[in-house]
Amino acid sequence: MNTQMSRFLYFIFVLALIFPKTVFGQHTAEKDESFKIGMAGYTYHKFDLDRTLADLETNQVQYLCIKDFHLPFDSSEEDIRKFHEKLASKEVHGYAVGPIYMRSKEEVDVAFAYAKRVGVKLIVGVPAHELLGYINEKVQEYDFNYAIHMHGPDIDLYPDADDIWSHVKDLDPRMGMCLDIGHTARNGKDPVADLKKYKDRIYDMHIKDVTANTKEGKSIEIGRGILDIPAFVQMLRETGYTGVCSLEHERNMDNPFSGIAESIGYFRGVIVATKN
Amino acid sequence: MNTQMSRFLYFIFVLALIFPKTVFGQHTAEKDESFKIGMAGYTYHKFDLDRTLADLETNQVQYLCIKDFHLPFDSSEEDIRKFHEKLASKEVHGYAVGPIYMRSKEEVDVAFAYAKRVGVKLIVGVPAHELLGYINEKVQEYDFNYAIHMHGPDIDLYPDADDIWSHVKDLDPRMGMCLDIGHTARNGKDPVADLKKYKDRIYDMHIKDVTANTKEGKSIEIGRGILDIPAFVQMLRETGYTGVCSLEHERNMDNPFSGIAESIGYFRGVIVATKN
Repeated sequence: MNTQMSRFLYFIFVLALIFPKTVFGQHTAEKDESFKIGMAGYTYHKFDLDRTLADLETNQVQYLCIKDFHLPFDSSEEDIRKFHEKLASKEVHGYAVGPIYMRSKEEVDVAFAYAKRVGVKLIVGVPAHELLGYINEKVQEYDFNYAIHMHGPDIDLYPDADDIWSHVKDLDPRMGMCLDIGHTARNGKDPVADLKKYKDRIYDMHIKDVTANTKEGKSIEIGRGILDIPAFVQMLRETGYTGVCSLEHERNMDNPFSGIAESIGYFRGVIVATKN
Repeated sequence: MNTQMSRFLYFIFVLALIFPKTVFGQHTAEKDESFKIGMAGYTYHKFDLDRTLADLETNQVQYLCIKDFHLPFDSSEEDIRKFHEKLASKEVHGYAVGPIYMRSKEEVDVAFAYAKRVGVKLIVGVPAHELLGYINEKVQEYDFNYAIHMHGPDIDLYPDADDIWSHVKDLDPRMGMCLDIGHTARNGKDPVADLKKYKDRIYDMHIKDVTANTKEGKSIEIGRGILDIPAFVQMLRETGYTGVCSLEHERNMDNPFSGIAESIGYFRGVIVATKN
C-alpha cells in the first residue's frame, strides 16, 4: 500500500472514531432511497427538545421539522446556535420549520425572518387565503419553498391537495404543499393518486395512518388503518420524491413512544419489502 | 329476514358487545395468514405479568409463550385459573410454556405436569442429550409437541436446526424444534433455508434480528440487522407454517418497549408489503 493510500485509510479510521454512526451506520431501510424519513415536531408537542431528540435517536430518525415550542420565534442567534448544536450531537438535521399559522403580514414577516435565522429553506405554513400573494413575494425574495399544510375536512382552510393546487397553480412554483396522507384520506381523496398528480409541488409530507376515509377517521399507528402504505412507498419511488416523509403521530400523545416506534418500523418494513 | 337469521344476527351483535376486538378487530397484518405473531415471555423477563400484558395489548399481540417467572412451576390450580383469566381479559392466549431447561428426569416430569396443568400442548425445552429418549416417551404419553430451543454458537447444546434434527430425526415426529432465526444466523446458517428444510418439525419460532452472522452478532430490532425478513415471511407462506412467530427481543431489556414496537411494526409492514 502506498503512503497516500495509508494516509487515506488512516483518515477514514479517524473519521470512524469521531462519527461512528455516520461512517459505519446501522442498517436503515431508506438509505438507498431518494426520500428521507423524518419527524414532524408536532408529534412531540408534550415533550421538550431533549426527550424529543432521545426518541429520534432511539428510532434512528435524523430529520426534524422544527416546531416553535422547541425553538420559539423570538429565539436569539445564540439560542439558535445552541439548538443546532444539540441536534447535531444526535446527528439530527432540522430541515424545515412549521407548521406556522399566518393570519397577517406581520406573522408572515416574523415567520420568514425566523426561518432565515434558523437557516432552513422550507416553511410549512397555514396562511390566510388573502396573504398568498404577499407570501408569493416573500418566497421569491428569500428563495424558500413554501409548503401549505392540509387539514382534511376539519376546517375550511386547505382541506386537501386539490384545494391547495387551486390556490397556488398560478403562483411561483416554490409555492406548494405538505401532503398529509391521513388528512387526504379523511377528505375522501387518495394520497397515492395525489402524490402522483402534484409531485412537482410537494415539498414536505406528513405520514400517518387513519381508521376511515371520512371525517370520523382517527389518526392511528401506521399499518393499523386503511391506507395502502406499500402503494404509497412505490409511488414515492415512481415520483422520485427527494424530500422528507415526516411522521406526524397524533395518538396517545401523552405517551406516544411505542406508537412512533411501531409506525416507523412498519414504514421501513414496507420500504425494504417493496425494493426491487 | 326470517326469525332464525334475526336470531343469528342478534347473537353476533351481542358477541360484538362482549368481545369488541374479536368481532370488530382493528387491522392486523397477519389476520389472513396461516401463521400468528406472538411474544416470547423471555422478552419481558424484567417485568411482571401486568406490564407484559399491557405491552402485548399496546402491540396488538395475542399469543404469549409463558415463562415460569410469570407463572411458576409450583403454581396451584387457582393460580393458573387466575393467570388465564388475566390473559383473557387482554384477549391473550398462552399458547406454550418455555423455554424450560431439563437436566434430569425429575425436571422433565415437573415440566410435563406443569404444561398439562397450564393446559398447553407445546413445550419449548432445552433438554440434556441423554434425556431425549425419556422425553420422547413423555411426548407420546401426553400427546404434546416438544420444540427444542437452539442457541447458536454460545453453548454446545443445540446450536442450530441441523444439530437438533440429528437428535430428533429417529424419534417421534412430535419431537421437533423452535427455530430461532437470530441464533441460526449467528451460527452461520440461513434461517430461510432451514425453515424450508425442517418445516415438518418446527413447532415454534423466535423472531428477531442480529447484527452479524457470527458469534459476535448481537440481537437487535427487526429490520436493523442482516436478516432478510421479506424472504423469511415469503417462506412462512410457502411452507404454510401454522404456528406462532414469537418475538424474542433481547436488547435494552430494562426498557425494551420502543424496540418491541419497532420490531413488531417492521415485521407486519413486511407481511403486508409481500402479500400477493
